[in-house]
Amino acid sequence: MAGENRREENLNKQNDDDIPKINVTINEPVRRPHRKTLNRFLTLPDFENGKDLDNIFETPSEDTALLSGEPFHNYGHLPAQSSLSESNHSVSGVHRPRPGFNKRHTWAASIKAIAGPVRRYTSRSGAYDDDGLAIVREGGGIRVWYDDYTTIDWIHDYVKERVRVRKLHSIRGARGKFLRLCDSSEGWILVFLIGVVTACIAGTVDSAVEWGSDLKDGYCSSNIFYNQRFCCNVTNVTKGNDSDILNFDYFRTGNDSENCTDWVNWSEAFDVHIMYNNDINLFNYFAYVFVAFCFAASAALLVKYNSLYASPSSKSSSKITTNNNTYRKKEAKLYAAGSGIPEVKTILSGFVIRGFLGIRTLWVKALTLAMVVSAGMTLGKEGPFVHIACCIGNVLSRLFTKYNKNEGKRREILSASAAAGVSVAFAAPIGGVLFSLEEVSYYFPSKTLVRSFFCAIVAAVTLKLINPFGTGKIVMFQVTYNKEWHVFEIISFLILGVVGGFLGAVLCELITLYTKNVRNRTWLKSYPIVEVIIVVIITATVNYVNKYTKMSSTDLVHFLFSECSNNESLDAGLCAYKAEDISRIILLLCAAMVSKFLTCVITFGIRVPAGIFIPSLLIGACAGRILGLIVQWLSYTYPTSPIFTTVCDPSITNDCVNPGVYAMVGAAACLAGVTRMTVSLTVIMFELTGALTYILPIMTAIMISKWVADGIVKHGIYDLLITLNDHPFLDSKAEYITTATTLELCEIDTEVIDINSRNTINDLKTKLKRLSNSGHSDSGFPIVDGSKLVGYIAANELEHAIKHVEDAEALPGSTECQFKKAEHEISIPNGHEHEHEHEHIITDFTAYTDQAPLTVSKTASLEVVLELFKKLGLRYICVVNCGDYVGVIHKKQLLVYLRNLAIKTPQD
Amino acid sequence: MAGENRREENLNKQNDDDIPKINVTINEPVRRPHRKTLNRFLTLPDFENGKDLDNIFETPSEDTALLSGEPFHNYGHLPAQSSLSESNHSVSGVHRPRPGFNKRHTWAASIKAIAGPVRRYTSRSGAYDDDGLAIVREGGGIRVWYDDYTTIDWIHDYVKERVRVRKLHSIRGARGKFLRLCDSSEGWILVFLIGVVTACIAGTVDSAVEWGSDLKDGYCSSNIFYNQRFCCNVTNVTKGNDSDILNFDYFRTGNDSENCTDWVNWSEAFDVHIMYNNDINLFNYFAYVFVAFCFAASAALLVKYNSLYASPSSKSSSKITTNNNTYRKKEAKLYAAGSGIPEVKTILSGFVIRGFLGIRTLWVKALTLAMVVSAGMTLGKEGPFVHIACCIGNVLSRLFTKYNKNEGKRREILSASAAAGVSVAFAAPIGGVLFSLEEVSYYFPSKTLVRSFFCAIVAAVTLKLINPFGTGKIVMFQVTYNKEWHVFEIISFLILGVVGGFLGAVLCELITLYTKNVRNRTWLKSYPIVEVIIVVIITATVNYVNKYTKMSSTDLVHFLFSECSNNESLDAGLCAYKAEDISRIILLLCAAMVSKFLTCVITFGIRVPAGIFIPSLLIGACAGRILGLIVQWLSYTYPTSPIFTTVCDPSITNDCVNPGVYAMVGAAACLAGVTRMTVSLTVIMFELTGALTYILPIMTAIMISKWVADGIVKHGIYDLLITLNDHPFLDSKAEYITTATTLELCEIDTEVIDINSRNTINDLKTKLKRLSNSGHSDSGFPIVDGSKLVGYIAANELEHAIKHVEDAEALPGSTECQFKKAEHEISIPNGHEHEHEHEHIITDFTAYTDQAPLTVSKTASLEVVLELFKKLGLRYICVVNCGDYVGVIHKKQLLVYLRNLAIKTPQD
Repeated sequence: MAGENRREENLNKQNDDDIPKINVTINEPVRRPHRKTLNRFLTLPDFENGKDLDNIFETPSEDTALLSGEPFHNYGHLPAQSSLSESNHSVSGVHRPRPGFNKRHTWAASIKAIAGPVRRYTSRSGAYDDDGLAIVREGGGIRVWYDDYTTIDWIHDYVKERVRVRKLHSIRGARGKFLRLCDSSEGWILVFLIGVVTACIAGTVDSAVEWGSDLKDGYCSSNIFYNQRFCCNVTNVTKGNDSDILNFDYFRTGNDSENCTDWVNWSEAFDVHIMYNNDINLFNYFAYVFVAFCFAASAALLVKYNSLYASPSSKSSSKITTNNNTYRKKEAKLYAAGSGIPEVKTILSGFVIRGFLGIRTLWVKALTLAMVVSAGMTLGKEGPFVHIACCIGNVLSRLFTKYNKNEGKRREILSASAAAGVSVAFAAPIGGVLFSLEEVSYYFPSKTLVRSFFCAIVAAVTLKLINPFGTGKIVMFQVTYNKEWHVFEIISFLILGVVGGFLGAVLCELITLYTKNVRNRTWLKSYPIVEVIIVVIITATVNYVNKYTKMSSTDLVHFLFSECSNNESLDAGLCAYKAEDISRIILLLCAAMVSKFLTCVITFGIRVPAGIFIPSLLIGACAGRILGLIVQWLSYTYPTSPIFTTVCDPSITNDCVNPGVYAMVGAAACLAGVTRMTVSLTVIMFELTGALTYILPIMTAIMISKWVADGIVKHGIYDLLITLNDHPFLDSKAEYITTATTLELCEIDTEVIDINSRNTINDLKTKLKRLSNSGHSDSGFPIVDGSKLVGYIAANELEHAIKHVEDAEALPGSTECQFKKAEHEISIPNGHEHEHEHEHIITDFTAYTDQAPLTVSKTASLEVVLELFKKLGLRYICVVNCGDYVGVIHKKQLLVYLRNLAIKTPQD
Repeated sequence: MAGENRREENLNKQNDDDIPKINVTINEPVRRPHRKTLNRFLTLPDFENGKDLDNIFETPSEDTALLSGEPFHNYGHLPAQSSLSESNHSVSGVHRPRPGFNKRHTWAASIKAIAGPVRRYTSRSGAYDDDGLAIVREGGGIRVWYDDYTTIDWIHDYVKERVRVRKLHSIRGARGKFLRLCDSSEGWILVFLIGVVTACIAGTVDSAVEWGSDLKDGYCSSNIFYNQRFCCNVTNVTKGNDSDILNFDYFRTGNDSENCTDWVNWSEAFDVHIMYNNDINLFNYFAYVFVAFCFAASAALLVKYNSLYASPSSKSSSKITTNNNTYRKKEAKLYAAGSGIPEVKTILSGFVIRGFLGIRTLWVKALTLAMVVSAGMTLGKEGPFVHIACCIGNVLSRLFTKYNKNEGKRREILSASAAAGVSVAFAAPIGGVLFSLEEVSYYFPSKTLVRSFFCAIVAAVTLKLINPFGTGKIVMFQVTYNKEWHVFEIISFLILGVVGGFLGAVLCELITLYTKNVRNRTWLKSYPIVEVIIVVIITATVNYVNKYTKMSSTDLVHFLFSECSNNESLDAGLCAYKAEDISRIILLLCAAMVSKFLTCVITFGIRVPAGIFIPSLLIGACAGRILGLIVQWLSYTYPTSPIFTTVCDPSITNDCVNPGVYAMVGAAACLAGVTRMTVSLTVIMFELTGALTYILPIMTAIMISKWVADGIVKHGIYDLLITLNDHPFLDSKAEYITTATTLELCEIDTEVIDINSRNTINDLKTKLKRLSNSGHSDSGFPIVDGSKLVGYIAANELEHAIKHVEDAEALPGSTECQFKKAEHEISIPNGHEHEHEHEHIITDFTAYTDQAPLTVSKTASLEVVLELFKKLGLRYICVVNCGDYVGVIHKKQLLVYLRNLAIKTPQD
């Protein structure tokens, strides 16, 4: 039999390594006879023909990795030497058929697995599924896969990875080198693919938005799929050399179609001309609002449709008990809606939300994003791009077992994906890496930094090659300021910092209040699609009236940032060449700012993809430009004032003040107020505009803005949303002021399993039921030996173990379940564990337990406990008093406690 | 008595807070009568008059913070409830007079301390001293201050800070708010000051270098303190508007003094003209070498002189036992020499090196740095600037007790200082923050990120205002490229990545080999000053011959980066306008590159301040420019080749290839090869040049270079130097492949203190002596109760406690020392601990013990133990088996073990 030969081959291989001979000889006699005993209990027909039986050994559990010459000790939360006992093998390798779980496929895969320890390790079954079904899958037989809405165990995943790596390093010679090379290149290949795919999808969305935005005005008669700019400048664009001029050339005023015959607006197309005051074409107005409505309504419907499939349906989520004390699982989440960043942050902090990063969410979010941005709503595509990139990262990481089977490792890839998301959203690769580091990621080891860097480069280069805007430029809002800033302007920049911080904090506060009190408390809650329709109609109606808001948000930001040349056709009417013009521009800008601000409040949090970056930038840029124009007015009105004469050349009129700089600084300040980012935001601004000269004013304004905003609202928008949505997020940045003791916080009344008492299956089931009834189904049972703590078993592992012995081995409820203490010595199994007198059957559950749970003294400071949870990513910690078991602290309990803490120090 | 009143006031205050009344009433009777009893044992005369006695209570230990209403529990490593027992008070507040320790001063300070818990807390004595004297100072009476060359206990320091903050938050009303505001502004004020002072010192050094560099050629007759550029362009400079031109204008060729009458070269000054071939003025040559020699020799002498004072002298370091197994303390370290970054990294990882960041090191390093850079040696000023900034951070943090008294907190400030160092060295604030994050810092919480950001801004703005170069520009090597890169150039950039990585890795390797086999093995080891002299003579002699190496390194880098205008006077002869010129330029550049490479190898590691940044940039830039010239030659020779015609306009000769871009990419690649930085290097390059358009080529080349270099030598130069210098650095980035178990690594034969046996002072002294003899004087003793672990006491704490009771209380050697178990209940002290029958005196050492040491199961994976050490910054961890004591693992042992590990995976 092929399987048998392969196994023997493996054993020979193990002999080649530096294994003490004794291990192998112990392994053999134990394993061989066991196969016969096992057959008697197996109810699965496949086992009977003896063919798939090999896979019981071929589909190793995590601890199989320990068989080839590893010394006998435990790997953190993994039991080690129990892997030598036959009872473990009898349970660890068997995969029970479950709904939606293709047993055949998995076994076939493991048969196909190449021989050798590495391949054997990677051939384990059980995959993270994205279709939202809460199927319990075995993560190797020892640990069941993480349930939906539970925290992952970082330490366990870390140790699992280290065991794999150590295994890999034990392979000698050229083959070992080759395998290690393959292994270390996997991560790079993966982030490369993520970069490329992210850029492709982003490029597609960008092109779609370019086309869709113009569709509100009219269409291109020569080619329906051309946007206005391509339609009118098609010869120039294909040449691709005049990119600099093009950047400005596509400024669309109301009557820009004058010199472009191919572009037909809707009024012309239907030949309906309803004029108001001979100025506004009402039919065009109506068409504008109608197209926006169509886009937004379809997007809302698609998001709703996705939610029906993407979130776990109630029938399969029976295992997930809702818990009044801890975080509740929301029903039918609209995964494709919103910015996605709060959820991505929560996932990266170690939480499992099934389906949130699945392939269906991916395409629905990309498609609906293009629609709502085209509709001209007050939202950005940056947050959603991060979410989309993370979906891509999650989906592609299924290609490599290393990442597919390890939730901890997978999160490293997701961090890199987030960098790629910002990289393509803003064409800001470095900014993306820093955004991932500063705002999104939880753990960011140096390896992830380099991977993110590579992923961001690949995404940016690919996007440049795709060239979705046809400009060939990577810098989004490129400015060409050639003047240094003047010392007197520092005052203005400080004011902008204050204003930006104020605007940002107020925006955060209003969004929170609106969501809490209006969206979640009124009828809007039940009718998200109606809400979207109302918002889009309001937005489109308001936007059309003002020439600045009528253009797309990115175009407006670009014009606000631009310096004033002396060519009026290129500056969108934002430049004033004499003092009298200024008040009119300021009025229009104020109107634009207020309308954008208010629509932003009602838009953000709506049930379609919506980012906050571009709206914030826009509001800040308007404020900045207004201040810039005021200073310019001063310079025009009082040109002889000593402030201006010392630094400016009075002979050149338009030389002294550049309102574009103020807009840029204002935009940065406002975004800092909203998100509280510092370093990453500076770099993003810098990559967005290329204005290195102004780095110091931008940095100063960002710093001031952060201070002001922190003074008004303590947290940035993403943290506020996490709190608002009740995500189980342990903020590693926050420091809590607490007078509680470890002893007060730990659950001392948790039921325990005593290894000395007779734990029958029925007893354990009763315990599980009680646990479930008390609403703590995602915690577990400490295992004690008298008063001493000897281990821990999580509820879902215990449940799995019980179900397994009941279903697969058909053991009666009176079967005694054994939990053994960790011993360092090799205990030669006596082979009597499966005794068959019906009165007293013993089965061994040791393999499912964590034999070395982290402990902390009951007198230890709660701060130390918090640090352990934050820095190591624990799920639980046991509290002991000089070795005696006292209680246990679970992460979710801790989160509930911290959430209720009155005093929470700000991040700074 | 003032002290008494104050104490009562405090107690009343405590009543205002929400303290259970019982605590206060317990405190009172215990403390009052105790004062009388205490007097009998105090041998210090000051105590007798009862005046300073108050300070026994007024100079609280760390646990005094627990007195005002804190629940009774331990704060991690701090014992808590023992603070209520009188015996603790009898030892904790007393400061024994020691050499160099001004008792009077300390007490006076504590008398002056403002009443109230916060102020009381901050009034503790004991400061981190920089004068190199290894004085043991009390860190609050419980913990003695960290010894030189020991690791700090991050968890202890963290908990200490949290206790302080919690205390602060317990103060109510406006006063509490005000105190909290003061407290949180302290950090900002401190980093602000650091930024300003760093920029001032950097500006001074920069100006001195500008002047000193030119002194090798001659002097300014109009004003001796003018450098050549000021001397010749003095009118332009003061106007300060033509900065752009000036940047290029100060290119000095051999005969640039033609059009400048004020500038007198040495040959003219002494009227000696010895010509060789009528081309080279041998007297100028000699003067050049002589001035360089003078600078370097004085610098070497100063460094040597500093080392005599800065490093701890042998007389006071008797307490520091050298340890054969662990890291040895080097004698008479030349603290001001070298780049300083490896040591700063080690310090930031939690090590104590006394005097390394002291004020004497600061000024010697700044002064000698200016000298050696002026001497034209192949070294940069960036690494030393980071060291200088950290010195400033360390010195200024003495202003605020919060940072002065907490080594963990102080390291946050040092991280921010490092950012300021790079910020002023390269005028790269963001790059500085990222450098600190990526390369230097160990822990970098988000608060530190924002502080570093602020510190870097302040430093950059201050430097801009100081304007040391007189150009008014913040961008150091500003380029004005206005062309996009072409697709065919990607190949060149990839080649540059490979070349840069190769050069960087070879440079690392050669420096290591040279240091290991030549510098440390030959007579050079004993004569560092002679070595400096030899190197400077070689360098100056070689440099003078080549016109490129003769100019200062920064100037050369600037010219290499510059694009070719059509003005030959501005391009330093680096531009070729026809194919025939190219070979000559390439030859000169090759010579420059080779000479710089070789002198860099012999220079780096020399006993004067020396950074590696500028030399690496220079070598890479030469390589890049050479490749650029080759490509340009191709474009000149084959102008009709399809590669060039598709992307370039053939009608313009000098349009297609810009060798400056290649130089920039090459410089980035080479520096990446040397340091293995990625994100921070990209940002630094970007801030150095302002060339945003070329961000993608630079990023790509850096990535390739890192891969290539990692393939040749696994670690960057700083990590290599850490290994070479045997610094005790636990690399948080490296992942170790180890098959050892926790049990194998832990010391099971450590002597323990059993609380049930009679531990007399003499017994404990014997134990200490044995520990010291075994070379583990910086470890300690686990405290056990039978087989159970109940605490831990570090050797230096125990030594301090013993010395204290012996000296201050004059207890005999037969005195029994008591160690109590941590109990959660309030144990009302019975007041009989100081019984005075001479046969059986008991003193309580519980206050000195860590009553809640972190433990780990003996079956736990070593990976988990490593993670605990890395992420929490532990000093030691106790290994238990179900609560029974097994052994202990100390950080230094772990480091020794890891150092000897054969397999160490690369960072990537």
